[in-house]
Amino acid sequence: MATPSMEDYVEKIYELIQSKGYARVSDIAMELNLQPSSVTKMVQKLAEAGYIHYERYRGLVLTPAGQLLGEQMKDRHTMLSEFLRTIGVPEEVIEVDVEGIEHHVSPSTVRCIQDLTSFLQENEDVREALAAHRRRRREREAAEQAAREQAEA
Amino acid sequence: MATPSMEDYVEKIYELIQSKGYARVSDIAMELNLQPSSVTKMVQKLAEAGYIHYERYRGLVLTPAGQLLGEQMKDRHTMLSEFLRTIGVPEEVIEVDVEGIEHHVSPSTVRCIQDLTSFLQENEDVREALAAHRRRRREREAAEQAAREQAEA
Ligand SMILES: [Mn+2]
Ligand SMILES: [Mn+2]
Repeated sequence: MATPSMEDYVEKIYELIQSKGYARVSDIAMELNLQPSSVTKMVQKLAEAGYIHYERYRGLVLTPAGQLLGEQMKDRHTMLSEFLRTIGVPEEVIEVDVEGIEHHVSPSTVRCIQDLTSFLQENEDVREALAAHRRRRREREAAEQAAREQAEA
Repeated sequence: MATPSMEDYVEKIYELIQSKGYARVSDIAMELNLQPSSVTKMVQKLAEAGYIHYERYRGLVLTPAGQLLGEQMKDRHTMLSEFLRTIGVPEEVIEVDVEGIEHHVSPSTVRCIQDLTSFLQENEDVREALAAHRRRRREREAAEQAAREQAEA
């Protein structure tokens, strides 16, 4: 089993290879805001776990297992972003929160959130009812807040 | 601002004080699966940040700021558990996943999930439609899986 931090590395290596064609230790270190020495250590662990290997001229390469894990990480990232977007989380928060939670959700939670997201996406009437529900709650909160401020004044 | 790991500590201290009446470094270390020396270091940080202080006979005590943060952590924990329960995540997964994600969700995400959870709880028809949607997806997945296995055989 890949640990949360192994997942993070494989995701980043996968992304770098997708975008630049290669993943150097220095790029990974910069992207994950870590010292190159920590990256080198993790790269060794990932090689032992069968996710990557090192080729003399190509540099870091994902094994089929690493490729599969990278794709799964990317899909999960996309899915969680879509979920947060669908329920109305502001765009500037989505990326930060997904990066925070994605390595801590188990497969069964991912499936349930996936079901929920596709359900909301396919049913406009439910999305509208949810939006109306949210507006009512926010209005109630604002009214309560105003009442508290009045009481304090 | 409290960091995710500070939140974790304050949550644990709050829980220990609620359940046992006091929070000893040794209890915190056991609960969080850490060395007492790491706990001692964090206890100093938390004291500097104004969340706890040490009293000669009572031991660790939450300040009003720490008490408030502890209550917020507990409410958020409860809210996220309810959300996962409402969308059908198995009971044995809920606790693990909530512990993993709770310190990585921003306040605006918490509010959106809260709105969604109360919406689902108040609307039985929507919950039933969601359950039917999930059943259909799972059946489709099972059929696709069976077709793949047949093709491979
Ligand atoms: Mn990600
Ligand atoms: Mn918790």
